[in-house]
Amino acid sequence: MAIHIPRGTQDIMPPEVETWHLIEEAARKLCSLYQYQEIRTPIFEHTELFSRGVGDSTDIVEKEMYNFTDRGGRNMTLRPEGTAAVVRSFVENKMYGNPDQPVKLYYMGPMFRYERPQAGRYRQFVQFGIEALGSNDPAIDAEVISLAMALYRELGLKKLKLVLNSLGDTESRKAHREALVSHFQPRIGEFCEDCQKRLEKNPLRILDCKKDSGHELMETAPSIVDYLNDSSRAYFEKVQEYLKKLEIPFEVDPNLVRGLDYYNHTAFEIMSEAEGFGAITTLCGGGRYNGLAEELGGPETPGIGFALSIERFIAALKAEKVELPVERKIDCYLVSLGDRAKDYTVGLLQELRNEGISAERDYLGRKLKAQFKAADRLGARFVAVLGDDELEKGVINLKNMETGEQTEVELASLAKQFR
Amino acid sequence: MAIHIPRGTQDIMPPEVETWHLIEEAARKLCSLYQYQEIRTPIFEHTELFSRGVGDSTDIVEKEMYNFTDRGGRNMTLRPEGTAAVVRSFVENKMYGNPDQPVKLYYMGPMFRYERPQAGRYRQFVQFGIEALGSNDPAIDAEVISLAMALYRELGLKKLKLVLNSLGDTESRKAHREALVSHFQPRIGEFCEDCQKRLEKNPLRILDCKKDSGHELMETAPSIVDYLNDSSRAYFEKVQEYLKKLEIPFEVDPNLVRGLDYYNHTAFEIMSEAEGFGAITTLCGGGRYNGLAEELGGPETPGIGFALSIERFIAALKAEKVELPVERKIDCYLVSLGDRAKDYTVGLLQELRNEGISAERDYLGRKLKAQFKAADRLGARFVAVLGDDELEKGVINLKNMETGEQTEVELASLAKQFR
Repeated sequence: MAIHIPRGTQDIMPPEVETWHLIEEAARKLCSLYQYQEIRTPIFEHTELFSRGVGDSTDIVEKEMYNFTDRGGRNMTLRPEGTAAVVRSFVENKMYGNPDQPVKLYYMGPMFRYERPQAGRYRQFVQFGIEALGSNDPAIDAEVISLAMALYRELGLKKLKLVLNSLGDTESRKAHREALVSHFQPRIGEFCEDCQKRLEKNPLRILDCKKDSGHELMETAPSIVDYLNDSSRAYFEKVQEYLKKLEIPFEVDPNLVRGLDYYNHTAFEIMSEAEGFGAITTLCGGGRYNGLAEELGGPETPGIGFALSIERFIAALKAEKVELPVERKIDCYLVSLGDRAKDYTVGLLQELRNEGISAERDYLGRKLKAQFKAADRLGARFVAVLGDDELEKGVINLKNMETGEQTEVELASLAKQFR
Repeated sequence: MAIHIPRGTQDIMPPEVETWHLIEEAARKLCSLYQYQEIRTPIFEHTELFSRGVGDSTDIVEKEMYNFTDRGGRNMTLRPEGTAAVVRSFVENKMYGNPDQPVKLYYMGPMFRYERPQAGRYRQFVQFGIEALGSNDPAIDAEVISLAMALYRELGLKKLKLVLNSLGDTESRKAHREALVSHFQPRIGEFCEDCQKRLEKNPLRILDCKKDSGHELMETAPSIVDYLNDSSRAYFEKVQEYLKKLEIPFEVDPNLVRGLDYYNHTAFEIMSEAEGFGAITTLCGGGRYNGLAEELGGPETPGIGFALSIERFIAALKAEKVELPVERKIDCYLVSLGDRAKDYTVGLLQELRNEGISAERDYLGRKLKAQFKAADRLGARFVAVLGDDELEKGVINLKNMETGEQTEVELASLAKQFR
């Protein structure tokens, strides 16, 4: 009986995997230009990291985490997102003591959330994200946003919308929070159970509720923009000024909230505006989390980052009908006739590959014609034909598959012919 | 309170992550030359895949797996190795129907085994592996081995030992198995409990037992080489002939067993012979598994592959004192003086990066001297200094950090200067 892949996950295979390579290479290249270095944290962490680092009252922690007990009885969780672990590592490895601040890191790898699978949503998905820890300069907020935009544009996406908001500093957030409580409290009974809990724990998240989004109190809810104090407002204006300087168009949306207690100041999302992209349009989300390192046992450290899903990136490329150069090509296919010639290609193949020439041969004992067909399917630039006769004479027949031109070259110099 | 990384796992951080990049890039490059394409299977699979695909009686499945029940009540396991999932995907996606056979795949990613952590052994570790499915040509066995050797050599390892064996075909294995049972049965009471179970389930694995390795019956145990039938012997000889042709030295060790029921013919390991490398010397293990696709519900399909741990690869590099070129370098550091100049560098930085120039600036409001120091630490090739005066004149001061040479260039043409 066949065994199936777990529901909500996918195998990424050739030729699709080539699209992944292009995106990942572009991301790594940009990170090198922008001076973000890679960090790889484990696939699972102590559950406590996420209940503290993502937030107990979030859907992720309450409903979507893959929790398990390891053989030593520890509560572990497959990471649902990347930031908490990066900040855990920043604290644990005392990176706040590095002379180079901010510490600029990126990650790329699988994340796990037990959600209902649907188009563009997987239970295992891959996130690319960056984090800049240690600077409170609004210019770094602009840099973080610009890297995400540069990556999308580099691969050819055009229909993008950047949405921006500020959640303000602790003081501003506190004032806003109180206003929210006063606003919803009198009629909280009309809201869903989750929202009733949120009122105490995290009223900001009520604004995010899908069930109650139509309630009239939603539209009249106090907006964070009216509660930003002077320094928060100045910070937000500076970020906007820098984005304009970088010619990155954006919209300010006061309803964009990222509902974790330690999020503050800049929050942003990048959406796809491609037609027919589907219900979930957010490609990338990010923001500032100045309280997180402290929450995780480290010194007070400003931080900002984003995370984006590669799966949604690819969906957006498809929606915009962007064609990427992912054709398979090999330099040389060795066709052989006769047992001695066939044996000889084992060494010849190696010689070519040692010279950096991608090469292939037949491993199924196929006839001449079938070998040529295989060469064709692989997109071979050249086919080299070796029979026992040629082997005797020490030559091989080299055919340029594009021009059809054929030349007899010395067996010993075949690899050199390619340089 | 700080939260720690799970025991037996590690954060891979800069600058060490650069070594990982070099190895991974070399592996991908070789796979391209050898025409292996990447496949990415999920981090977890149905537990049944491994109990069937790795083997119920193995230590891995019995003692070391990370099992958990997902929120839908399914038994899941973090993958302990890569082959079972690749073959699952081969069967599920009907790759046996592709015109291009053998299907040549590689994978690179984390695996999970709950073992006692020790030097060179982690509970999460990264494997690079390849699988060639669909060919019974001994030349593909040689190719698989040669790719592993080429990767180690490419990165500079010299002290390697390749050990080879044949486990024969089903008939040979059956004859050998019977001989093993007859050999051990009379005195099986003198062996450990695990071995007593193994006698019935998989007597080959008795030869692998660490506890009973000193027992006198071990030395006199029947050797597989004496039970190979003619075709198995001919196959094994052909593999050896090809390895000689490829100038890959090897030793035949009849005690090298890979104790899974569907393993057959070629088995091999590559060990480090570097002094002081430690107790675990195996860097890479592989072999032929012609019965696996069928075991997992597919058609009978020959297959061969290897897996190697990147962590041990790096340990071997350290043991051989191989120095890899992992120096951090950036093209240009922008030093600024004054608020207007500082603001201006936000756009200038972007301009440089858009041109493919890696560039950085200060995000901490540091003084001139501290900015120069930061540039030094990052290994900047050039430092560009911009003050409010220069900004007024539309110029910037460019210093070559290697020669000390300074030139004043037009602000608008800074990016061009680098090309």
